[in-house]
Amino acid sequence: MVFILKVGVQKEKIEKFRKEFEDKGFSTIWAPGTDHNAVCLIGNTATVDMDHVVATHDIVAYARRVTEQYKAASRSVHTDDTVIHIGGGVQIGGGTFTVISGPCSVETEEQICCIAESVQKSGAKILRGGAFKPRTSPYAFQGLGKGGLDLLSIAKKKTGMPIVSEIMNQTQVSLFDDVDIVQVGARNMQNFDLLKAVGKMKKPILLKRGLSSTLDELLMSAEYVMSSGNEQVILCERGIRTFETATRNTIDLAGVVVLKEKAHLPVIVDPSHAAGIRSLVPPLSKAAIAVGADGLMIETHNNPAKALCDGAQSLDLQQFEALMLDIKKYAALEEKTL
Amino acid sequence: MVFILKVGVQKEKIEKFRKEFEDKGFSTIWAPGTDHNAVCLIGNTATVDMDHVVATHDIVAYARRVTEQYKAASRSVHTDDTVIHIGGGVQIGGGTFTVISGPCSVETEEQICCIAESVQKSGAKILRGGAFKPRTSPYAFQGLGKGGLDLLSIAKKKTGMPIVSEIMNQTQVSLFDDVDIVQVGARNMQNFDLLKAVGKMKKPILLKRGLSSTLDELLMSAEYVMSSGNEQVILCERGIRTFETATRNTIDLAGVVVLKEKAHLPVIVDPSHAAGIRSLVPPLSKAAIAVGADGLMIETHNNPAKALCDGAQSLDLQQFEALMLDIKKYAALEEKTL
Amino acid sequence: MVFILKVGVQKEKIEKFRKEFEDKGFSTIWAPGTDHNAVCLIGNTATVDMDHVVATHDIVAYARRVTEQYKAASRSVHTDDTVIHIGGGVQIGGGTFTVISGPCSVETEEQICCIAESVQKSGAKILRGGAFKPRTSPYAFQGLGKGGLDLLSIAKKKTGMPIVSEIMNQTQVSLFDDVDIVQVGARNMQNFDLLKAVGKMKKPILLKRGLSSTLDELLMSAEYVMSSGNEQVILCERGIRTFETATRNTIDLAGVVVLKEKAHLPVIVDPSHAAGIRSLVPPLSKAAIAVGADGLMIETHNNPAKALCDGAQSLDLQQFEALMLDIKKYAALEEKTL
Amino acid sequence: MVFILKVGVQKEKIEKFRKEFEDKGFSTIWAPGTDHNAVCLIGNTATVDMDHVVATHDIVAYARRVTEQYKAASRSVHTDDTVIHIGGGVQIGGGTFTVISGPCSVETEEQICCIAESVQKSGAKILRGGAFKPRTSPYAFQGLGKGGLDLLSIAKKKTGMPIVSEIMNQTQVSLFDDVDIVQVGARNMQNFDLLKAVGKMKKPILLKRGLSSTLDELLMSAEYVMSSGNEQVILCERGIRTFETATRNTIDLAGVVVLKEKAHLPVIVDPSHAAGIRSLVPPLSKAAIAVGADGLMIETHNNPAKALCDGAQSLDLQQFEALMLDIKKYAALEEKTL
Repeated sequence: MVFILKVGVQKEKIEKFRKEFEDKGFSTIWAPGTDHNAVCLIGNTATVDMDHVVATHDIVAYARRVTEQYKAASRSVHTDDTVIHIGGGVQIGGGTFTVISGPCSVETEEQICCIAESVQKSGAKILRGGAFKPRTSPYAFQGLGKGGLDLLSIAKKKTGMPIVSEIMNQTQVSLFDDVDIVQVGARNMQNFDLLKAVGKMKKPILLKRGLSSTLDELLMSAEYVMSSGNEQVILCERGIRTFETATRNTIDLAGVVVLKEKAHLPVIVDPSHAAGIRSLVPPLSKAAIAVGADGLMIETHNNPAKALCDGAQSLDLQQFEALMLDIKKYAALEEKTL
Repeated sequence: MVFILKVGVQKEKIEKFRKEFEDKGFSTIWAPGTDHNAVCLIGNTATVDMDHVVATHDIVAYARRVTEQYKAASRSVHTDDTVIHIGGGVQIGGGTFTVISGPCSVETEEQICCIAESVQKSGAKILRGGAFKPRTSPYAFQGLGKGGLDLLSIAKKKTGMPIVSEIMNQTQVSLFDDVDIVQVGARNMQNFDLLKAVGKMKKPILLKRGLSSTLDELLMSAEYVMSSGNEQVILCERGIRTFETATRNTIDLAGVVVLKEKAHLPVIVDPSHAAGIRSLVPPLSKAAIAVGADGLMIETHNNPAKALCDGAQSLDLQQFEALMLDIKKYAALEEKTL
Repeated sequence: MVFILKVGVQKEKIEKFRKEFEDKGFSTIWAPGTDHNAVCLIGNTATVDMDHVVATHDIVAYARRVTEQYKAASRSVHTDDTVIHIGGGVQIGGGTFTVISGPCSVETEEQICCIAESVQKSGAKILRGGAFKPRTSPYAFQGLGKGGLDLLSIAKKKTGMPIVSEIMNQTQVSLFDDVDIVQVGARNMQNFDLLKAVGKMKKPILLKRGLSSTLDELLMSAEYVMSSGNEQVILCERGIRTFETATRNTIDLAGVVVLKEKAHLPVIVDPSHAAGIRSLVPPLSKAAIAVGADGLMIETHNNPAKALCDGAQSLDLQQFEALMLDIKKYAALEEKTL
Repeated sequence: MVFILKVGVQKEKIEKFRKEFEDKGFSTIWAPGTDHNAVCLIGNTATVDMDHVVATHDIVAYARRVTEQYKAASRSVHTDDTVIHIGGGVQIGGGTFTVISGPCSVETEEQICCIAESVQKSGAKILRGGAFKPRTSPYAFQGLGKGGLDLLSIAKKKTGMPIVSEIMNQTQVSLFDDVDIVQVGARNMQNFDLLKAVGKMKKPILLKRGLSSTLDELLMSAEYVMSSGNEQVILCERGIRTFETATRNTIDLAGVVVLKEKAHLPVIVDPSHAAGIRSLVPPLSKAAIAVGADGLMIETHNNPAKALCDGAQSLDLQQFEALMLDIKKYAALEEKTL
């Protein structure tokens, strides 16, 4: 961390400033410049609230963080890829390519079981399904709630597939006992109470990137979960908000590469929500493999035309089956096993 | 709502499509075009899930919403300005200009009372103070929690000022009994469970715009609160996320004008969080008056250099006093009373 | 195009409005609504300046364009893919996958010939090289100018590879006689004088998307070139500006799919400029094939550590050779020939 | 400038790296860290191409620029406000508030003279009018060209008002002999050939911020003009592109404050193009004064309903007269004279 000092600061004030940090165990380096002088701070600066230091020390003009603020997720601390072991012999990361599939919303037992059996046959390893649905409009379908989770459990029992569903707030933790992976949605990526709550759960957390969150903020949110005791975090790229309106969001596939370089956690991609348009799902799925993702989450429906939500982006079961054939070919090129 | 049809659709399918909506009480209009034919839907289209219709009807290529989706907040439904009456004879809207002030975080009884008395003397009408703090890093100060609310109550008792503080999740509702205005923060603007919960409270809600939320989405979130039974919503512009990094966020002052045109709810501005830099707060405060805002929320601290959070953007009490003199002159130009 | 009328407009005014357009050959449809009435305009609305109509007709509240404004590039007018034939038996589009490669800047005869021969051997079909360089800082290297084009011509003669280079303004047209593809850079995508000038050239134009341009605006810029008489336009996705700063720009790979759906022109991807980081170039190159691009433009250098510009994003010749092996495998999956 | 080194780099390589810069007259400082070591570079780093250094030195992991890259425009070099003296006793900056007004496009002699006389009477000091118009669609009105400049000259002669008009490319320089201020539009902010050309003109340049340009990039473009020999640059904020679509662009009024802090050049605001909606122009004009702008550029028309372009954002002459009364009151609060 570098503190650029204001012009004309007295020597004693600078000494006092350096001593303050040296007393806390940091080293400091004096860096005189042509226009400005600076003090470099050496040590574990992740714990230093940079803005706070600027605010509370009159002699500092501004500051620059030179190294990253997250630690637990950082590859510089933990060089090997983390592999997340889900129930039923399924894993995410570590040379496998894992496809999660299922409907946006769980609707009926028949629907979820029909979809589960079909996507399993096509090669999906984990079943997704929304029980609690965040919707922009209060007049839109809000999901079946607890009943939806129960239907997911039935499908899990029938097929043996592990299940993933979205949690909306920390009061729901106990409802997710039978859920194998707990999803924290994009709108909740900085719901810090929820992050702390899932950080105390003993199961994998699927953390989706917020619509306007930087990759560093996503890793800081992972840090919330990990520093609360739960190191099983799966990151999910699902598109960011930009000025372009032709697609619902702009999928940041370069971000997947950056996340894999910076962090040791597995990264999956959700092309369905990123694009919001069915025809974009297959090409983006293949592209996700090409950039090194560890898996995909793809929305499917046995009858998209009758889906209660987001039908426009859901593949039907035949389309998913066809896509899985392509996914297998692409994964093979990357030497990953499904 | 206009549905643009695919090329070459059979007549019977179109008739079936129109009948489906006419049976629900809508009118439809047939609009043949040179490249594409279209069907216009007439009626209360706010209740129609447009994407769902596109997804579930093969004959539709795409659709356009022509009128807005929110109703309760819309000025077309409710032409007069809504005035929010707070305790203690204070109001927001209706020709007054209301200044809310106080520290980012409540720290001690001495601090909050000292600040309250000073900002009241300078002309602030409502006291703000954070008890539960959303912080990007798990290692940053997270607020005093319930104890912070208690300290706010003490300051309220001493000064008679109504108080506003941020709620983080719906389990906290009962803690806010003595709080006069409940703030829903930017990161929670689409926390729909929280919106429904505060929609059942009998007190004014201060709803901050999300960092990546459009004005229409802000109004849809207001709709969540209002459709749950609470019509006392105050909107707050606090900057949006853009590519520009010289300021923490980009304050959207034109958005204030648009909100006032589209909705009947009062709109205030938070220049402290938008800018993140102290020197920008006074000019942006004056500009907020110029664009027609109904009030301001300004962070102050008796000793910004020792503030436990966001000191960089807090005014000290003398700076706030000086700013209030300017605010009075500007409000007078707009014929508003403080 | 739909015109939503203000409330309470007189019948005669509406009739006059409709007649004005009907006299110009359009049809109009009367669409009464619950809150607002509207008039739908049918015909070739691409030629209608919508904002102008709103501005010049008091009775109109606002308007919505229902169909697209561009025509020449639209797939609805020209359903088959356009194939661009370059000199030397090379083509872009039509089932081929064409790789363009070369240095950011042409530096010396030895440099450009060495790179040309190497990338040709690895499988690149077209040689790129910058002679005129747009640089943010006036203190940065600005390219060799005309001398750079001469060196490119030497490399072309030696290898037989067609060449592509960027034009900076319309006074340079005559300098590009020996250049096979003329590139219009991202910063010039809306330099309309330049677009008209290259629209009169008899050779293919490589049109890069502007940093803050929508896909529709890119297609409107293609329309400028095409409506000036030159239909040989190749579109190029090279990243857009967003709030994310981990990569130089955010590559919009979903945009490639959208462009291929909306327009009949070939689309290539420039991963080097989008990412700005060498390690991202190979994964993004493979992803570009997966989303259906017709080719790639990849920066290479015989000695990136000594490159006069943008060395950070350039592959060395061995890295490029290795990448081409992967590109061949991916292109084979998409049944494209290099 | 700080260079963060890769882990495990040999001592000799670091010494060689430091020596390379010390030989060029820089000082270097060795900054060992817990995770990474770094080298700080001291001296005039504005001339150092940071990315190039990273690219060309294997031992460097990444780098951070600590101080700004522009020099000529920087307030740290030139602390006093620059005042631009226009012909006819008019100035911009230095305690005056200067209003520029006129139509989007010059249409006829009658039109431009009528508008000029009226806005002059209302208090505008400079006349604007577009002769060459950049339009997104090739089918839209493109301006009168040279004839438009001639009409502006006639209005200048009649009223004595200095005139400003937009230049589109460097071949037009000689046409602007009688134009007092030459405008470089938002789309040309990084047309570097044009910047160099106007940098050789002996008259003030009005430089508009690009739609997706940061404030630093705007200052770097000013640096192009100034380093070419022309120090008379007026900066203009006119809105940036963001995800919000309710207004044409998002006006960045905080950016005005930042520009005034960072640079010594005058800053004006164009609320007409930023908003794109007439009703937003008066509030944003007043807000511009509040944030410390040195002037405004406001579009007016004697008959907006018949304007050939951008009528939707033009004030009519009565609206402008009324606005000027407000502007005078606001400028008086800021102790500025019109």
